[in-house]
Amino acid sequence: MGIVEDFNRYRGKMNEKILASDSLIIKRIFNLDTNAYTEGALDVRSKELIGLTCSLVLRCDDCVRYHLGKCKEIGFSTEEVNEAMGVATLVGGTIVIPHLRRAFEYWEELQHV
Amino acid sequence: MGIVEDFNRYRGKMNEKILASDSLIIKRIFNLDTNAYTEGALDVRSKELIGLTCSLVLRCDDCVRYHLGKCKEIGFSTEEVNEAMGVATLVGGTIVIPHLRRAFEYWEELQHV
Amino acid sequence: MGIVEDFNRYRGKMNEKILASDSLIIKRIFNLDTNAYTEGALDVRSKELIGLTCSLVLRCDDCVRYHLGKCKEIGFSTEEVNEAMGVATLVGGTIVIPHLRRAFEYWEELQHV
Amino acid sequence: MGIVEDFNRYRGKMNEKILASDSLIIKRIFNLDTNAYTEGALDVRSKELIGLTCSLVLRCDDCVRYHLGKCKEIGFSTEEVNEAMGVATLVGGTIVIPHLRRAFEYWEELQHV
Amino acid sequence: MGIVEDFNRYRGKMNEKILASDSLIIKRIFNLDTNAYTEGALDVRSKELIGLTCSLVLRCDDCVRYHLGKCKEIGFSTEEVNEAMGVATLVGGTIVIPHLRRAFEYWEELQHV
Amino acid sequence: MGIVEDFNRYRGKMNEKILASDSLIIKRIFNLDTNAYTEGALDVRSKELIGLTCSLVLRCDDCVRYHLGKCKEIGFSTEEVNEAMGVATLVGGTIVIPHLRRAFEYWEELQHV
Repeated sequence: MGIVEDFNRYRGKMNEKILASDSLIIKRIFNLDTNAYTEGALDVRSKELIGLTCSLVLRCDDCVRYHLGKCKEIGFSTEEVNEAMGVATLVGGTIVIPHLRRAFEYWEELQHV
Repeated sequence: MGIVEDFNRYRGKMNEKILASDSLIIKRIFNLDTNAYTEGALDVRSKELIGLTCSLVLRCDDCVRYHLGKCKEIGFSTEEVNEAMGVATLVGGTIVIPHLRRAFEYWEELQHV
Repeated sequence: MGIVEDFNRYRGKMNEKILASDSLIIKRIFNLDTNAYTEGALDVRSKELIGLTCSLVLRCDDCVRYHLGKCKEIGFSTEEVNEAMGVATLVGGTIVIPHLRRAFEYWEELQHV
Repeated sequence: MGIVEDFNRYRGKMNEKILASDSLIIKRIFNLDTNAYTEGALDVRSKELIGLTCSLVLRCDDCVRYHLGKCKEIGFSTEEVNEAMGVATLVGGTIVIPHLRRAFEYWEELQHV
Repeated sequence: MGIVEDFNRYRGKMNEKILASDSLIIKRIFNLDTNAYTEGALDVRSKELIGLTCSLVLRCDDCVRYHLGKCKEIGFSTEEVNEAMGVATLVGGTIVIPHLRRAFEYWEELQHV
Repeated sequence: MGIVEDFNRYRGKMNEKILASDSLIIKRIFNLDTNAYTEGALDVRSKELIGLTCSLVLRCDDCVRYHLGKCKEIGFSTEEVNEAMGVATLVGGTIVIPHLRRAFEYWEELQHV
């Protein structure tokens, strides 16, 4: 049923294989990645905004999709997400626009999951 | 009927949704993007060459496709487009080559549209 | 007296020259840049966090310096700034570390200005 | 039959078209690219490690696929490839992870070709 | 006498050392680089515009300086150079602005050399 | 006494401050960074080649300097280092050349330290 499930299924399947590979450096990066977005000096909302916009300026569609999923779970409004992505597009330039298109499509799909 | 129409249809559909979202920053970037490629101190040909090659060194397939479409409309020859992309590949390195493959495919397709 | 003043003086001087050049596209980008960080659907704090971390993953020292200055004005704590930069370093990789060094130095200097 | 053959077929077909285009700069880059990975002061193994990891930090899936194919031919073990990719992920950051997923998938597929 | 001469002196000195090193790959890249900007299907003006703007979106100050020097020699007007850099800043985003500052400074200096 | 000592002194001083900041994510990245380059499935030489060339294609002068220092310690010859950097310049494009200049200068300086 569409791009959200496809993304989650592939991501889950491959992460499992990567972690099963006993690659020590990669395992520690994954572990650190999980911990980094939990509440600390900054709350979870701020961290997800950082994750989303850094992913967008670095033009990584899958990273954007992951953080959009998290932003939805946490309860960000469409206006907030769009504004964050607007700032990121300004910082990263029009080269970001094709990724913005896919991000809008994914966010829309997330509303129906 | 192939990659040109697919690209244009998806691009058109999503741009419409993005503009309908009332995201002020994004709207202004889109507006500025439209104006930037019109004739000014530089002619339209020079600007499209800039758009094409900057898209290629930044390795954005969709941006390359868009500017290839424009280059075709304006009347660039295959030799001119290939040479521009050659310079961009030199600047950006062999990492650009996979994008060059897709650009060649798209340009070929554009001749039959 | 030192890197903060040097940065601000050079930035101010050159921005003035750029704006005096009557380059329409650049003027509009500068204008949009000023507006984008004002309160909207997101508050100013969230936007500065976005600006800071996107600048860091894109490894632009001057952009980092600018947003560190803004973060100081707004009242971010050292713990908050460090954590934001930690997430950005994780996203952007160890290649970000040299920029992190300069960011720490600049933030320290900002406390004495 | 799967992603390895698809990749090789498309790469082969498009490289042929690119070389047939008589674009001098591109031809010379392709020629240089072929020569650069042959034994010199460094052996072929070292050069493929460089090709693989540079492709990964620059986040070029097709380049990663190409060098994974070469690493398989040369006889790299899965442990060696994974460790190289681990170092590259550390250097390039978590933004590399989606490319790591596709690299793991491709490497697995290469074992069955 | 300022940044233009400093840049040219350092560039000249180091290029000489690099070429004296008998590194075959590097020598061939340098050779290709020299040839790529000569007249072909595109004229020298178009190629310098490509070199300048690709350097700017890739945020390489020294590359920008080199191509600004060439643009001056060829006879580009300040309006033309500024407009090209404006398009590049739009494509590459506000992250390009610090490089734009240094480019404006260098172009101004070039008028007095 | 020149750029090697300057680099090492600044790097040492700032790393100390960063580690003293008790920023958990950053501390763990630094720790992982130290471990990643020790012998594992790949030997130390291979890992330093990866570190050097990934740093070069990502155009991080300080990272290049750090790995050049390590390559010197380990006993790489000038021919080996130059060839590795040649491959990286081919992958990353002529945009890498200004960083290559500074790398050659630093490597030369390292011979006299």
